[in-house]
Amino acid sequence: MSQQLTTIKLDKTSLEDLANGCAFLGSGGGGDTYYTLLELASLVDKMPGTSELTLLQPEDLSDDDVVAPCGWLGAPTISLEKLPSGTEAVTGLKKLQDILGKNVTAVMPVEIGGSNGLAALVLALRCNLPVVDCDGMGRAFPESQMVIFNVAGLSACPAVMTDAAGNTLVIETRDNDAEERVARAAAVALGGSCHLIEYVQSGAQIKASAIQGTLSIASQLGRSMREATLRGSSPVDALIDVINNSSLYPRGGVLFEGKISDVKRQTLDGFSVGNLCVESFDGEQTMDIIFQNENLLASIGDKVCAMVPDIISVVDCETGQTISTEQVKYGQRVAVIGVSAPLVLTTSEALAILGPSAFNMDYDYRPVEVLNNWECQ
Amino acid sequence: MSQQLTTIKLDKTSLEDLANGCAFLGSGGGGDTYYTLLELASLVDKMPGTSELTLLQPEDLSDDDVVAPCGWLGAPTISLEKLPSGTEAVTGLKKLQDILGKNVTAVMPVEIGGSNGLAALVLALRCNLPVVDCDGMGRAFPESQMVIFNVAGLSACPAVMTDAAGNTLVIETRDNDAEERVARAAAVALGGSCHLIEYVQSGAQIKASAIQGTLSIASQLGRSMREATLRGSSPVDALIDVINNSSLYPRGGVLFEGKISDVKRQTLDGFSVGNLCVESFDGEQTMDIIFQNENLLASIGDKVCAMVPDIISVVDCETGQTISTEQVKYGQRVAVIGVSAPLVLTTSEALAILGPSAFNMDYDYRPVEVLNNWECQ
Repeated sequence: MSQQLTTIKLDKTSLEDLANGCAFLGSGGGGDTYYTLLELASLVDKMPGTSELTLLQPEDLSDDDVVAPCGWLGAPTISLEKLPSGTEAVTGLKKLQDILGKNVTAVMPVEIGGSNGLAALVLALRCNLPVVDCDGMGRAFPESQMVIFNVAGLSACPAVMTDAAGNTLVIETRDNDAEERVARAAAVALGGSCHLIEYVQSGAQIKASAIQGTLSIASQLGRSMREATLRGSSPVDALIDVINNSSLYPRGGVLFEGKISDVKRQTLDGFSVGNLCVESFDGEQTMDIIFQNENLLASIGDKVCAMVPDIISVVDCETGQTISTEQVKYGQRVAVIGVSAPLVLTTSEALAILGPSAFNMDYDYRPVEVLNNWECQ
Repeated sequence: MSQQLTTIKLDKTSLEDLANGCAFLGSGGGGDTYYTLLELASLVDKMPGTSELTLLQPEDLSDDDVVAPCGWLGAPTISLEKLPSGTEAVTGLKKLQDILGKNVTAVMPVEIGGSNGLAALVLALRCNLPVVDCDGMGRAFPESQMVIFNVAGLSACPAVMTDAAGNTLVIETRDNDAEERVARAAAVALGGSCHLIEYVQSGAQIKASAIQGTLSIASQLGRSMREATLRGSSPVDALIDVINNSSLYPRGGVLFEGKISDVKRQTLDGFSVGNLCVESFDGEQTMDIIFQNENLLASIGDKVCAMVPDIISVVDCETGQTISTEQVKYGQRVAVIGVSAPLVLTTSEALAILGPSAFNMDYDYRPVEVLNNWECQ
């Protein structure tokens, strides 16, 4: 079992641990954590005496709490270069509160993956709000309707999108697919990376639907990886141990090791899409990975080794640091780790929204442990 | 001088006159009027005793009136097939009033051209509001920032976009170019045709900035055309007479007559773009017209005959009915009429926003009467 935290420590090491864990859970996406770490460090510097942030467990919420999931929407390739102004989240929150006619009482990451796992901390610090130890995806997904709240039939709207130039968009669509389409199109029109607050829920709905404990797990992933490196043991093994000891993720393991031998990537329609190849160190085998912001499918020849919604994370062999889809480069020495998705993402209702068919891939979902016979080990 | 109306009569003939005049002022764009005429007729049928609509002159407004310019944004090719639900305008108005915290007291067409010249009547009838005898363009333009209010430095926002499915978008951008980009992208994401209320102004601002009397002129254009046809004289000459007797449009005249010999048209990025050719009846000359929703440039070989912001309308030779850019077809027998734009659209500030350079056309604006030596006649 992962240990549930009651606070998020705001020192450099703790934040880096959290960032590394979020990156790992991002399946290659969710945005590079570097800039958000800098933003958090800068915020903490300006708030003397602030050394931690309240982390609520979902059961700590009262039913009528108002919880705002937040994050950034766009292509991670763009967010590497198009920096936030720092005002987006607060502007969005204020606008949301105006629309709702009530105050938001807690924030949470809409997805735990990548920098979006950290984005809620920025808003929490700026507005002195607690963060809830949960998210809407248990990982990162490229499209905003690929979220457990949508699976549960909850509405994304009103959603508030803001950008670095001070532009604001209030989106109220009749269905959550339209919310993604409009948000994506508007984000592209505004430069390709926008802050989005969406799927605002009551405390009762968060308790019933959110994917719980993911900030704690991310923090633990990062810490275990760091501690393993310090004591000279494998950070990759440490990551997998945390996963296999969590109650949320059924199983994790190394799918492949080798060198990045090819990357094809383009920024298209507000996404970073492409594929990459990992060649085994002996040159005998190649793993192909397809991505759309996140790694979606890993295969060796005809054999599929992992598929969405399972997490496919490409990590540095030596450090365990996750290499995101926008940072992956020829020559990197990597391990590809597969982690089976939280079970709530593998129901038929969920798979219709975020499984292989939602990406036009003609596969029936099979968990990574089944595809790789890990059950038998 | 055109005669200023105090009411818009809602009988079939009067509405058709207005529609025909709006179509003519649309420079080929603004949307086909057919469906909006049906919608108006259906509305009037359901409101026994309603035979006219109050038409305010801008000077009738009090300074603190709240005037909502409205219309449809998208590709006219799409609005031919994607019909409105009828609720878009009212939903948008209510949302706008919620945001403003005050009631709208009058509506107006954001552009007088095409069905957008009639759209304000739909909203006025549904909400029992007066219409102001003015618009923001004196014609139709393809992009929403190409409006006199933008030339005057006024903001488009908050703008409210709605669609037939009940989706609503509140747009608050820092500049009016971004409002167009976001609105266009969102409209494409929602199917390519949305209702938009934007550039909401006080009565004082309308008096200072709006292009006045255009509903009256449109009505008169349609009536003169119809009456000319009835008495066996040329409806084309009748249209030109109204223009040349108006105080708003400096000069109008026939640029070319012939048969449509070619049309290239595609729906691209939320616009209907292409070009058409008119071959003279003797086959000796061809006029080429480039369009983006609206006709933008008419030329014969190297000789430019008319350019945006001047109105270039292709009308049926016999009936004087304007043929819009989405309806123009091979074989139609047409006259191409040029009308010089209201002078407020020809200042250097205005031309930077809506002149040839705003369409990436490398021409300095010269009025149609200069290009064709009509001054000398």
